[in-house]
Amino acid sequence: MNKRAVINVISALVVVIGLMILISGVVGWLMNDRQDVVAQMFISAAFSISFGSVFFLLTRTKNKKIQLGIREGFGIVTLGWIVASVFGCIPFIIISDMFWYDAFFETMSGFTTTGASVLDDKLLLTNGKNLLYGIADLPKGLLFWRSLTHWLGGMGIVVLSLAILPFLGIGGQQLYNAEVPGPTSDQLTPRIANSAKILWGVYLLLTVAEVFLLWMGNMTMFDAWCTAFGTLATGGFSTQQSSIGYYNSTYFDVIICIFMFLAGCNFILHYKALRGKPLFHWKDEEFRFYFGLVILSSLLIAGFLMIGKITIHTTAGLEIEPGLFNSLRYSVFQVISILTTTGFATANFDLWPAFATILLVTLMFIGGCGGSTGGGMKNSRVILLLKYGKVQLERCLFPHLVSNVKLNKERVPSGTLHKVMSFFFFFITIYLTVALALCFLDYNMDFRTSLSASIAALGNIGPGLGKVGATCTYSWITPSAKMLLTFAMLLGRLELYTVLVLFLPSFWKK
Amino acid sequence: MNKRAVINVISALVVVIGLMILISGVVGWLMNDRQDVVAQMFISAAFSISFGSVFFLLTRTKNKKIQLGIREGFGIVTLGWIVASVFGCIPFIIISDMFWYDAFFETMSGFTTTGASVLDDKLLLTNGKNLLYGIADLPKGLLFWRSLTHWLGGMGIVVLSLAILPFLGIGGQQLYNAEVPGPTSDQLTPRIANSAKILWGVYLLLTVAEVFLLWMGNMTMFDAWCTAFGTLATGGFSTQQSSIGYYNSTYFDVIICIFMFLAGCNFILHYKALRGKPLFHWKDEEFRFYFGLVILSSLLIAGFLMIGKITIHTTAGLEIEPGLFNSLRYSVFQVISILTTTGFATANFDLWPAFATILLVTLMFIGGCGGSTGGGMKNSRVILLLKYGKVQLERCLFPHLVSNVKLNKERVPSGTLHKVMSFFFFFITIYLTVALALCFLDYNMDFRTSLSASIAALGNIGPGLGKVGATCTYSWITPSAKMLLTFAMLLGRLELYTVLVLFLPSFWKK
Repeated sequence: MNKRAVINVISALVVVIGLMILISGVVGWLMNDRQDVVAQMFISAAFSISFGSVFFLLTRTKNKKIQLGIREGFGIVTLGWIVASVFGCIPFIIISDMFWYDAFFETMSGFTTTGASVLDDKLLLTNGKNLLYGIADLPKGLLFWRSLTHWLGGMGIVVLSLAILPFLGIGGQQLYNAEVPGPTSDQLTPRIANSAKILWGVYLLLTVAEVFLLWMGNMTMFDAWCTAFGTLATGGFSTQQSSIGYYNSTYFDVIICIFMFLAGCNFILHYKALRGKPLFHWKDEEFRFYFGLVILSSLLIAGFLMIGKITIHTTAGLEIEPGLFNSLRYSVFQVISILTTTGFATANFDLWPAFATILLVTLMFIGGCGGSTGGGMKNSRVILLLKYGKVQLERCLFPHLVSNVKLNKERVPSGTLHKVMSFFFFFITIYLTVALALCFLDYNMDFRTSLSASIAALGNIGPGLGKVGATCTYSWITPSAKMLLTFAMLLGRLELYTVLVLFLPSFWKK
Repeated sequence: MNKRAVINVISALVVVIGLMILISGVVGWLMNDRQDVVAQMFISAAFSISFGSVFFLLTRTKNKKIQLGIREGFGIVTLGWIVASVFGCIPFIIISDMFWYDAFFETMSGFTTTGASVLDDKLLLTNGKNLLYGIADLPKGLLFWRSLTHWLGGMGIVVLSLAILPFLGIGGQQLYNAEVPGPTSDQLTPRIANSAKILWGVYLLLTVAEVFLLWMGNMTMFDAWCTAFGTLATGGFSTQQSSIGYYNSTYFDVIICIFMFLAGCNFILHYKALRGKPLFHWKDEEFRFYFGLVILSSLLIAGFLMIGKITIHTTAGLEIEPGLFNSLRYSVFQVISILTTTGFATANFDLWPAFATILLVTLMFIGGCGGSTGGGMKNSRVILLLKYGKVQLERCLFPHLVSNVKLNKERVPSGTLHKVMSFFFFFITIYLTVALALCFLDYNMDFRTSLSASIAALGNIGPGLGKVGATCTYSWITPSAKMLLTFAMLLGRLELYTVLVLFLPSFWKK
């Protein structure tokens, strides 16, 4: 592995992180954060920027562009995400009394768009202030940074660097493939940097649109930006301790639902639709599957709430009778939030009947579409698994059957199919291993909590069931179990292979 | 499909079932069952024998042996198991006040070696007697029949017919492949009927050995036979309501552990060992994996019980302090019982810490070895999945790598590997679908119960967690949910494909 090149690219990434913390500090300053807190933000930013710059200059290669191979691609993306979280957690450590592992957990949860939080009203700021109303009392600059980590991680921090840093021409394909989700990482243009720019452009456009619509509904500009970051990235950090349920507004629920849904689609479809092909979405097999899943799951859960006369407890503490309108309102929101792996909550779905909770956990496994900002296994993989399974079944009857698996009328190469099959095995195996290890590392874990916390981290959802349910936080978990969850988030966000190859002995051999 | 041939073979099977009920009736008569009950057993037997004989004679093909193709193989095995359960449940319906669906559940649970029971002390016999002490009060003939269903299903009722019915020469391979568990159904001799005879011979030998050893420890001869049937078939029906915990005997625990372990091994290994190759077991990769899994899981759970000072509640109601000896005794028994998918219980493991329960549920998925009487996915499949996953991972670095997956130093054909990958996908998907559907069909299902009941049925284990835990029965479940579980048992026992192909439209086309 070309270590010099790897360090060089990661250093540039650290500078980008520093600049983003700087922007957050400025936002805090404009929002009237206390001066000492603003200064702490600027110190964090300065540290990242200077540290990154020094290493970047030290490892610079003169007069030629960097050459990146397969190994460097995996190395840069995996290590890049870890290093980004290390530098990204500095503001949390400086401004509050958080332990390093809590700050690292929160930042990795942000970048990976998981949205699992350890912040609650027990937190103390280093200036002595405590958080009476939970996270809403955090300094605005820090709260903004927290949501911004989502937004940066959603479309991919390394792909972002590809788009804005000109020196990353050659070898960008490796980085792109290692970071962009989905079994087939199609690119839009022959030049990878252009593809990255287009995707980030669509992403920014949708974010601005959501901010505008939330602001029209009288959400504060600050909350609107943070919420939009959490929505488009399918992240789930909110500026309120009780998540979106805090606002108790049907209008906000609808707007956020729409944008969560869009964030869970393949962004290439959005780009094509914006270029004048509005029906392009419906032509996509994965989109139809995803759409059908949302409709079917929402109706089933709404029906269960209505027929079972289950009182809906909102995250803000209201109790609502399950009429037709409210059953649909809360079930649609939760289904979209969970399937897209966002993790926003309006209702405490932990109290819903087993049918609803198990269905939601199943949706956690499926996740968003390939090429979206969502986590999970991705709808396209599920479609390929189903089609390939059918072929295997037919081979029982016709052993010599040559049957092509097609997606959107195009033949899927057998190499991709086999990779998807093994992906599924790894995903389930890692899920179970993490669930088991959580119980091993923390005696307070119970069956329901560990089985849901594992997928909530691996699928980048955020809230689970039981003690990590929609109205709970992850703060009570032991440090070692938190580190394990952090690792699961990284594995899930980078779709396993990118991280797992680093554990192959052959990866490190010359 | 040659319907005439299918009906012919299944009719012969019904005659075999009738003869076995007859034997059970005789056992009941020898054990001093009331005369009316013995008569009811004989009536059930006569019904099956005459019904089967008539259809057998009607569909007989003169002067030539039956020709069976692939379709007939799948059809005979799947429909054969259903028909066998229909005729097998007649004694339960005649002798007790059980509903047809309860009797069918109990019989299918027997044949598939699941061991999930709906029998409890609320049952009434048609002669007015009630069961004060649960199943121990059942007429001996019926109790014997219940355990005998395990033993018949363990090695495969159709393979049994292959061994004892001479007319099933041609096409027997199809039946063998459709019924014998494991990714590769090796046969021992070129003639399939001989292979079937050998496997049944080893099976019988081990059963007699266990009966002898249990009897030596002062178990009644009747209990010894029934327990041995349940052990060697990895079934789990006991003659006592509190399962093996009733006897509270370390000697019995050890003997049963040894035979459950042997029943979970590939029977071909036993045959080779008996033929003078005692170290043959250790040379087998799957055996080493299986053995390692038992040791590791037992030590982990015993350690957890000891360190956590978890009081062990036996199924008979005793409370035992977790010293070194007792922790090992109860954890080894439960690990072997669950991994082999037997489902006997000495302790109420539902009360153990989450680490132990999740580990046990994980073992339920893995199950026994290929070619054993155990259920689950089989150790050999898990090994192949791990090896194939590693190859896919290496292909991320070396895209053109040609890497052969080997098992016991022999290359595994890629067709087998792909079938195993899809098997895993189907297994997990069906598991989740059944868990969801259980909650849909029965509002009293909770998260813990439905997630464990689904694998307890699909993996042919028997007891699960929560309301279907080691000290509970399945009697409280709604009829529709019971039928679903019955179907899951059949799917699991016949390893999915054999049943699923019947749902392909192309199966029914000419």
